[in-house]
Amino acid sequence: MKKVLVINAGSSSLKWQLFDLDTLSLVNKGLMERMQTPEAVFTIVRNGEKFTQQIANLTYQQGVELLFDQLEHLHLIQGVQDIAAVGHRVVAGATIFKQPTQITTANLNQLKALNKYAPLHNPVQVECIETLMNVLPDSTPQIAVFDSQFYLNMPDRNALYAIPYEDSQKFHIRKYGEHGISHEYILHETARFLNRDYHDLRLVTLHLGGGSSITASKDGRPVDTSMGFTPLEGLPMGTRSGSVDPAVVPFLMNELHLDANQVIDTFNEKSGLLGVSGISADMRDIVANKETNQRARLAYDMLVSSAVKYIGGYYTELGGLDAITFTAGIGEHSNVLRTDIINRLAVLGIKIDEQRNTDGHGIRVISTDDSTVKVLMVPTNEELAIAKAVKKLTVN
Amino acid sequence: MKKVLVINAGSSSLKWQLFDLDTLSLVNKGLMERMQTPEAVFTIVRNGEKFTQQIANLTYQQGVELLFDQLEHLHLIQGVQDIAAVGHRVVAGATIFKQPTQITTANLNQLKALNKYAPLHNPVQVECIETLMNVLPDSTPQIAVFDSQFYLNMPDRNALYAIPYEDSQKFHIRKYGEHGISHEYILHETARFLNRDYHDLRLVTLHLGGGSSITASKDGRPVDTSMGFTPLEGLPMGTRSGSVDPAVVPFLMNELHLDANQVIDTFNEKSGLLGVSGISADMRDIVANKETNQRARLAYDMLVSSAVKYIGGYYTELGGLDAITFTAGIGEHSNVLRTDIINRLAVLGIKIDEQRNTDGHGIRVISTDDSTVKVLMVPTNEELAIAKAVKKLTVN
Repeated sequence: MKKVLVINAGSSSLKWQLFDLDTLSLVNKGLMERMQTPEAVFTIVRNGEKFTQQIANLTYQQGVELLFDQLEHLHLIQGVQDIAAVGHRVVAGATIFKQPTQITTANLNQLKALNKYAPLHNPVQVECIETLMNVLPDSTPQIAVFDSQFYLNMPDRNALYAIPYEDSQKFHIRKYGEHGISHEYILHETARFLNRDYHDLRLVTLHLGGGSSITASKDGRPVDTSMGFTPLEGLPMGTRSGSVDPAVVPFLMNELHLDANQVIDTFNEKSGLLGVSGISADMRDIVANKETNQRARLAYDMLVSSAVKYIGGYYTELGGLDAITFTAGIGEHSNVLRTDIINRLAVLGIKIDEQRNTDGHGIRVISTDDSTVKVLMVPTNEELAIAKAVKKLTVN
Repeated sequence: MKKVLVINAGSSSLKWQLFDLDTLSLVNKGLMERMQTPEAVFTIVRNGEKFTQQIANLTYQQGVELLFDQLEHLHLIQGVQDIAAVGHRVVAGATIFKQPTQITTANLNQLKALNKYAPLHNPVQVECIETLMNVLPDSTPQIAVFDSQFYLNMPDRNALYAIPYEDSQKFHIRKYGEHGISHEYILHETARFLNRDYHDLRLVTLHLGGGSSITASKDGRPVDTSMGFTPLEGLPMGTRSGSVDPAVVPFLMNELHLDANQVIDTFNEKSGLLGVSGISADMRDIVANKETNQRARLAYDMLVSSAVKYIGGYYTELGGLDAITFTAGIGEHSNVLRTDIINRLAVLGIKIDEQRNTDGHGIRVISTDDSTVKVLMVPTNEELAIAKAVKKLTVN
């Protein structure tokens, strides 16, 4: 039985899923966390039970090698020959990689040259690809699926910054967005669930998780998105600030005696819900404390207000909406946040059905029947989206 | 006859107007341009005719002293005792100066300490105040009216960035907006023209000029605005980029071997309409070339799309709108731009009346009678607004 392995390596974690090639049904999945730190943890699920191993300073290379040992040990594969192909999530393809692409020694250096477009993500994703090039036979395709590729279709008026045009062109500076694999998957899933052609759907997708982004799609392609050149821009997130006047960078460099990268690190790692509330980057803690803690309230209100303005802006930009879909960790699980955002869209005739929102489970409509725009909750599945792309590229 | 002199010093120019204290009618006005350069020009209007003098490297101090010579020479004042008070536009009051304030030797250093919040504007504005402290008797009040003060009333959820809360507090980092004097004046003028109490008006004001900003007001106070900590953020402008992912700053520092301030200078001075089109920072040139020049078209479309999204976002944030008002150089004079922005708001039921828009003159409604939101063109007058504030503070 041939399998597709999907590797979703982040800046400090690695999620993987193993799919059956024929049916794309899930065979197994696992997670490595706090990579390259003394507290690194390797977790694998077997028969619904989690097996966890602490392995200090686990690297991405060691993690991937260990993963193959475990897959064989648990008889999930008989040997490397059972892996038909591997799909890798890669954040930045810049304007070079426009679609899912098999990575070989011929284009590996081209990919490595893009590390600067996603310094926290691309290098570890490349490390995983190189490791598997050694572990697996040369004939096993390593397919990179890029978060950036969905947004290469965005109209220039929204994709480019109004900086000197020559700089945008020469250095490939534009909005690459983020969570492109997720937003595209949700576009297709929403259309499928509503029995609509996804080309005919004017849709706003809210991917709200540790990182958050909002995307407007029409005619089957994205028209605008909240994230930018990097995943820093847009909404306030768990630890990321979202949009900030760029002139704050030199101001804070001067006040705090930091270099520019350190200021950006502060915006990425110590800001957002954590930086504003002072208590947590976790939306569950923010919601639990927002009635008693003024700064938790502020963090919550900033996120809601920002989301409301993006939705209103995209509603106008698209000339109306057919649907709004919530997804990802917070979007799927925080019904309070969904309620507070949708209630602030009343002027557009959008209404939430509290029973559907709170009591329902899984993919569903959560708006009232007379809402002018359908509101949905749709679970995302980036790994499945990657597996589909891999299958399409390797089987056809 | 006592007079009020208003000094509006910018980063490279100085506009002034002389008002009659009793009636606040305009007595005379003038302009100095390209200050502190070999091409500096001093212009004064007398009986409707312009008198222009080239004075190489004219400083703000020399300009203000020359202005007083000319006022006496032209018998607009008999002597310095005719000046009841002077009003100065000052960009940055940070969170220190919350209202129009008389500047004396007692608080001058407090004001100087704010230079870093508007490095191109505050220092020359302070230079004008200090010069007039020497030229005029100690008893003549010098009133600073701050662009930032209007926005100190903004709710924290929109005024603060989601950076660490302690940094926001300690370094007074927040959205100060810009053109606050203009937006507040337009709020009052729009209400007056519509025979409404300005407290009851949900209004979006578009101040579109060399610099551009959009402000949402409700209950007589601003709720949100497009400009930020500095006048860089928000819409694409003549030479300013508007919003950019802050992570682009270190990226471009590295690629172009610049320091952070030089990157911000590029965003302020070589970007916007100029940087995108490559032909001009002047909206008239962009409009004239947008059908034949692809990059002029792109610059135009970026501005329209950005404005449309801000209006849609603020429509939602305010829970509906009573009026939208265009003002300032471009907002008052580019009916093509007004048309293209309003036509993209059709989904909100907002409709432009082309005859009112194109053929009308002066303050007027330019929307159709059945438009869901009234759209107006209202000329701004920052100097008159400053004179009113000065009179209120000195006569009462």
